[in-house]
Formats: sequence, C-alpha cells, structure tokens
Amino acid sequence: MEGSVPEAVGRRPRSDAHEALRLWLRLFTTATLVERQLGTALKRGFGSSLPRFDLLAQLDRAPDGLRMTELSERLLVTGGNVTWLVRSLAAEGHVVRERAAQDRRGAVVRLTPAGRRHFRAMARAHERWIERLVGGVPPRDRRALARHLATLKQSVTTSEELA
Amino acid sequence: MEGSVPEAVGRRPRSDAHEALRLWLRLFTTATLVERQLGTALKRGFGSSLPRFDLLAQLDRAPDGLRMTELSERLLVTGGNVTWLVRSLAAEGHVVRERAAQDRRGAVVRLTPAGRRHFRAMARAHERWIERLVGGVPPRDRRALARHLATLKQSVTTSEELA
Repeated sequence: MEGSVPEAVGRRPRSDAHEALRLWLRLFTTATLVERQLGTALKRGFGSSLPRFDLLAQLDRAPDGLRMTELSERLLVTGGNVTWLVRSLAAEGHVVRERAAQDRRGAVVRLTPAGRRHFRAMARAHERWIERLVGGVPPRDRRALARHLATLKQSVTTSEELA
Repeated sequence: MEGSVPEAVGRRPRSDAHEALRLWLRLFTTATLVERQLGTALKRGFGSSLPRFDLLAQLDRAPDGLRMTELSERLLVTGGNVTWLVRSLAAEGHVVRERAAQDRRGAVVRLTPAGRRHFRAMARAHERWIERLVGGVPPRDRRALARHLATLKQSVTTSEELA
C-alpha cells in the first residue's frame, strides 16, 4: 500500500479513442497516491487517518456542533463508518456528543478543546505535506491544473445521470 | 451521497498561500465526484460497485489468475475487503478459486467465462460513462489536463517520505 499505486500498467488502453478513460485513470491514480501518502503520514505522525482528519475538519468549522446526519453529509472521505469514528474519537476525548438544549435536532457532536488542538496540529502538518507533494509542479502549471480541474468538475457536475 | 460532494465550502482556505492545499482539494473532490457517479451507475446498471469492477478488471488481464496477495496489490480502489469480495463474486459464478497445479503459489483466483462477459459489459458502459462525464472538457483542455496531471503524479511519486 505504502504509496505505490500500480496504476496504468496494463490498465491503460492503447488507442487514442480511450483518451477520456486514460485521463480519468490518471486523475484517479494521482488522487489515490496522494491519499495513501497522507494516510500513512497521518498514521505515523499522529496515530490518525484521513477519515478521522476529515471528520475533525468538519467539526472544526462547525462551532455549534453537527448532528450525525449533517456530519455524514459533509464528509469528503468515505470508508470510515461515521458512528464508529465518532465513538472512537469520543473515547479519546477529541469530541463529545451532547443533546442540544435550544433546539430539537437531537444529539450533536462537537470538538473538545483538546480535539481542536489535535486537529489544528494535524492540519498544519497536512498542509506542509501537500505543499511537499505538489512541490515538483511549477506554480504556472499548478494554476493551469487548477483551472482545468475546475472545467472537468463543472463537466462532471452538469452531466446527466449515467444509468 | 448521490454524486453530491459538499467540497470546499468553508474548507477552502482563503489566502493564496494555501494554493497547494486548494489544488489538492479540487483534485480530490473531482475524483470523488466521478467515483460516486460511477459507483451509482455500476450499482443501478449492473448491481455492482467500483471495488468489484476493479477486482474483475485486474483478473480480466491476468488469464492465468492471480493469488489473493497479487490481487490485493493490484487493486486501485480501496474500501472493499478482498477476501469478502472474492467470496461474493465466487458465489455469483463470476470467479473461481483453484489450486494452481504447476506451481506452488497456492490458490489462484480467475474469471469464469460468465465473469468475463459480465466484466466486459460493465467495462463498455464504464467507458461510455467516463466519456460522458468528461464530455464538457474540450479535447485541447483534456490533453493539457493529462499533461499537468502527469507532472503532479511525478512530483508526488518522487517526493520524500512525509512523516
């Protein structure tokens, strides 16, 4: 696993007719490579993981806390069972589950002060790591890449339902 | 879940100093969007999933079959437990586990003829779907995107260990 993605060996179609597929595989393998590196580093540096980091990040920007359903909707990283993640983070003192007094939304999850410190330390490292991973791409190419990704994202968002 | 990724709302840092982080989040959310769309379509169209599709794709290009360890190493999509996936695909008649006679590598997994037909039908749909998702990106931008992604991938691959 350790950051080695077998990628397109054999998977890459040879004809130019498969250009879109090739583009997707390149995007996907690049994203997977970065995810694995970040996951490994979060584990080594903080005993954490990307799903945990993502969950804490969502809570960090929700000072009033989030209901479990809101939390699930906002998570970017899949693969972690939200209930289980919250339980484990609560056991470590990073989050608490409280019944919201003023409204009837039911229990909300929020960061503890210790959880916030833990998240902020990870967020700083996370940003440094990404800077390092992207470091080999000249600034001009980064901007072009960001622009083209925006176009692709727009294309994906506006495309009709597939099946 | 259905193809809606909340992305960078609030997650996007405001200063330009966070350019690398922004780039990564854009890449990641785009990949996640595509993955969700493909996953939903595989489910609707074939009662399948991306991890299953990925597993069958690896076997499709390994006519002699693969050991479980080889299979795990080659999978691009995480999130599916390989043993469990193989068991479920075997129960449906798409793969078989056989002891390899000539060598001592232990049991290998291979596609059945029905599994191969099933995979090929999915692969054709999968390619059409990707063509559709990428359809809004002009060919010239696709090529530029592919080029810049190659640069980024190279940067990620050659960066030193993070932590």
